[in-house]
Amino acid sequence: MDAFYHNSSVSSLESTDTAGKVITCKAAVAWGPGQPLVIQDVQVAPPQKMEVRVKILFTSICHTDLSAWKGENEAQRAYPRILGHEAAGIVESVGEGVEDIKKGDHVIPIFQGECGNCMCCRNQKTNLCQKFGVNPLKSVMVNDGKTRFSSKDGSPIFHFLNTSTFTQYTVIDSACAVKIDSQAPLQKMTLLSCGVSTGVGAAWNVADVQPGSSVAIFGLGAVGLAVAEGARVRGASKIIGVDINPTKFPKGKAVGITEFINPKDLEVAVHEKIVAITEGGVDYSFECAGNLEVLREAFLSTHTGWGVTVLLGIHPSPKLLPIHPMELFDGREIRGSVFGGYKGKTQLPKLAKQCMCGTLKLEEFITHELPFHNINEAFQLLVEGKSLRCLLQL
Amino acid sequence: MDAFYHNSSVSSLESTDTAGKVITCKAAVAWGPGQPLVIQDVQVAPPQKMEVRVKILFTSICHTDLSAWKGENEAQRAYPRILGHEAAGIVESVGEGVEDIKKGDHVIPIFQGECGNCMCCRNQKTNLCQKFGVNPLKSVMVNDGKTRFSSKDGSPIFHFLNTSTFTQYTVIDSACAVKIDSQAPLQKMTLLSCGVSTGVGAAWNVADVQPGSSVAIFGLGAVGLAVAEGARVRGASKIIGVDINPTKFPKGKAVGITEFINPKDLEVAVHEKIVAITEGGVDYSFECAGNLEVLREAFLSTHTGWGVTVLLGIHPSPKLLPIHPMELFDGREIRGSVFGGYKGKTQLPKLAKQCMCGTLKLEEFITHELPFHNINEAFQLLVEGKSLRCLLQL
Ligand SMILES: NC(=O)c1ccc[n+]([C@@H]2O[C@H](COP(=O)([O-])OP(=O)(O)OC[C@H]3O[C@@H](n4cnc5c(N)ncnc54)[C@H](O)[C@@H]3O)[C@@H](O)[C@H]2O)c1
Ligand SMILES: NC(=O)c1ccc[n+]([C@@H]2O[C@H](COP(=O)([O-])OP(=O)(O)OC[C@H]3O[C@@H](n4cnc5c(N)ncnc54)[C@H](O)[C@@H]3O)[C@@H](O)[C@H]2O)c1
Ligand SMILES: [Zn+2]
Ligand SMILES: [Zn+2]
Ligand SMILES: [Zn+2]
Ligand SMILES: [Zn+2]
Repeated sequence: MDAFYHNSSVSSLESTDTAGKVITCKAAVAWGPGQPLVIQDVQVAPPQKMEVRVKILFTSICHTDLSAWKGENEAQRAYPRILGHEAAGIVESVGEGVEDIKKGDHVIPIFQGECGNCMCCRNQKTNLCQKFGVNPLKSVMVNDGKTRFSSKDGSPIFHFLNTSTFTQYTVIDSACAVKIDSQAPLQKMTLLSCGVSTGVGAAWNVADVQPGSSVAIFGLGAVGLAVAEGARVRGASKIIGVDINPTKFPKGKAVGITEFINPKDLEVAVHEKIVAITEGGVDYSFECAGNLEVLREAFLSTHTGWGVTVLLGIHPSPKLLPIHPMELFDGREIRGSVFGGYKGKTQLPKLAKQCMCGTLKLEEFITHELPFHNINEAFQLLVEGKSLRCLLQL
Repeated sequence: MDAFYHNSSVSSLESTDTAGKVITCKAAVAWGPGQPLVIQDVQVAPPQKMEVRVKILFTSICHTDLSAWKGENEAQRAYPRILGHEAAGIVESVGEGVEDIKKGDHVIPIFQGECGNCMCCRNQKTNLCQKFGVNPLKSVMVNDGKTRFSSKDGSPIFHFLNTSTFTQYTVIDSACAVKIDSQAPLQKMTLLSCGVSTGVGAAWNVADVQPGSSVAIFGLGAVGLAVAEGARVRGASKIIGVDINPTKFPKGKAVGITEFINPKDLEVAVHEKIVAITEGGVDYSFECAGNLEVLREAFLSTHTGWGVTVLLGIHPSPKLLPIHPMELFDGREIRGSVFGGYKGKTQLPKLAKQCMCGTLKLEEFITHELPFHNINEAFQLLVEGKSLRCLLQL
């Protein structure tokens, strides 16, 4: 187990101007489904036991924020709320008992936490955490069931995905903060907080893409293109990109996609086309669009006998898997992937290094940069399929 | 690749009394869904190119025969037909080009063939065969689309699952005949033709059960009990057996099941009970009942993060998998298993040896023995849940 779980050095809760005090800062607050976010003052309470307060320097918008903002899943709605889960920042102060992180550390928040102690954290086969795993229904802190955010009048503002990064300061469980090399460029590290780790990890950890293999990626947003990047680094020889928005294709080419399919241009189903151009189907397919019909196409695009489909997209409504039980007898497999299978605290520091040394290229992913107060504009860029990631500077 | 694909010795098509001639013999013919099988004379044509004609000495009845006999899946009905796929026998003659098998060899028919040359046969990850894989819709020989069985008047009698063993003589593709050690007891080898290989292989090849792990098996017929036997040999520490028929429990105990659950005795769902007695769920579960509700219970009985459910049961109606896409994000996996993942011709001879030397114990599986003409009685024993396997002697 890594040192951060057992570090016995003295706690680094140092006295500062703000430590232990409530901070008032700007945040973008969601007040209802699809309503423009409101940039307003919020109060951020000090971190409690095993929590850290982070000054967010950069944040970006993932499709999961978009779905939550639209309120696609009614059961998961909670307002007012601070969305956002892709970010990078600097620790402002830490709560009691936090020993692996101290004031001034550079951190990236992770929505899939790692407590290090539960049965899942202690098992190498999974990156789930029974205490701080992602739970879209959760909107308060584990410690006390309360929020650390409030309005001027003291009424609570809810948390989101263990992170809530659309704010100048946030409070997260230390299990959800990954300390990274202080030399790493924080702008790019923001991408590791969700999209890029999710995609690369799906290729490396979940599918375990082999050199010379064939891959099909459905949905070429930041997540899908990160899958391509991961597959390229692993030496896949054929990487097919599928998207109904052909403006994604030039970016796809830059990260190693070798062939493109726009379903709208086909007279046959996408899987029939893929089976035809790959001697019976690809070795791996990835669903990164969040659409069940696409999931079925992805499933049928793999080769019988050994094809693996990785499900990354979020599917809001609780429908059944569009697969017949007997179709599993064709030897195709389907696996879900949360955060690319990464155990964040244990494995992300290495991934950050792989980015710093150029193994992974992050250049293509930040397509836009805007000041924080233009966040609604950034949402629109994603809605319209114009951006991969728009970096917001706080 | 094994020698049997490239054996360049001279063909062993020797002249005999019957070789090259039509054989008239007794078979049990199915004439309609659920109708008693009729023991009657049938004509069995000589084997054609790459086919072998086998004198069946023993056959037994698997639940898959029961489903076909009942005609549960209408699309798969074909009458008159010779059912049966679990058997052992001696080669009577071989067709042109057959070089790995000769007259007098002891063989077991396999419904999941192995041609050795197709993309799947050449891939170590799968036991599917693109040419002779199991196909419940198929009722004729691949060579010429015709049957080798006919009535006295020459009208065709259909084949079943590449095998058709409820007959004194059958013709099968050489890709579906596995030569085994002539010292192996043919009675017991019959079990390797389907049930026992299917169950043991699901534990060994598909789930890859690890020492000290926990297992839940739903449905304690021959297939489910063979899973238990496989899990026991692998050193699983907890093997839970689930069946609505408690008369299966003593047999279960004999093959290593450590705990039994009769769903009818519970006030909670089976998976809740299993999760409660296993620190959050078993490592592996196996569906051997052919019931979609059972499949969902099996799926939810495994531990989040790493649980693997293996689907063995046949589900006649084309319903969707009873799993929500987002449930895959809990890290549970589901895999289909045909014939326990065994590449029959390559791997079964070794399995036969493992039975001969006592690694695997087959004593418990043959619960009844009857002469062939009592086949309808043997069907009833399985229908009523009284038998595991009833061995029919031809
Ligand atoms: N599993 C995880 O841990 C995880 C993490 C992050 C994001 N996600 C999910 O991954 C998905 C992708 O996220 P993103 O940020 O890259 O989204 P995005 O909006 O940037 O990209 C989605 C892409 O899918 C394409 N698309 C939409 N419908 C399509 C169709 N029918 N066929 C082909 N392509 C289609 C869009 O044109 C777009 O390019 C979302 O569902 C998101 O919620 C999951
Ligand atoms: N995948 C393959 O390659 C393969 C090969 C052989 C058999 N099969 C299938 O495996 C299944 C088992 O075959 P078998 O020959 O052992 O059958 P069997 O009839 O001998 O055993 C089935 C068992 O399931 C139990 N059962 C039925 N409903 C149940 C329920 N709701 N909950 C718990 N238990 C229940 C029965 O009491 C019985 O003991 C069948 O569906 C068969 O078609 C699959
Ligand atoms: Zn995200
Ligand atoms: Zn944990
Ligand atoms: Zn069978
Ligand atoms: Zn083959």
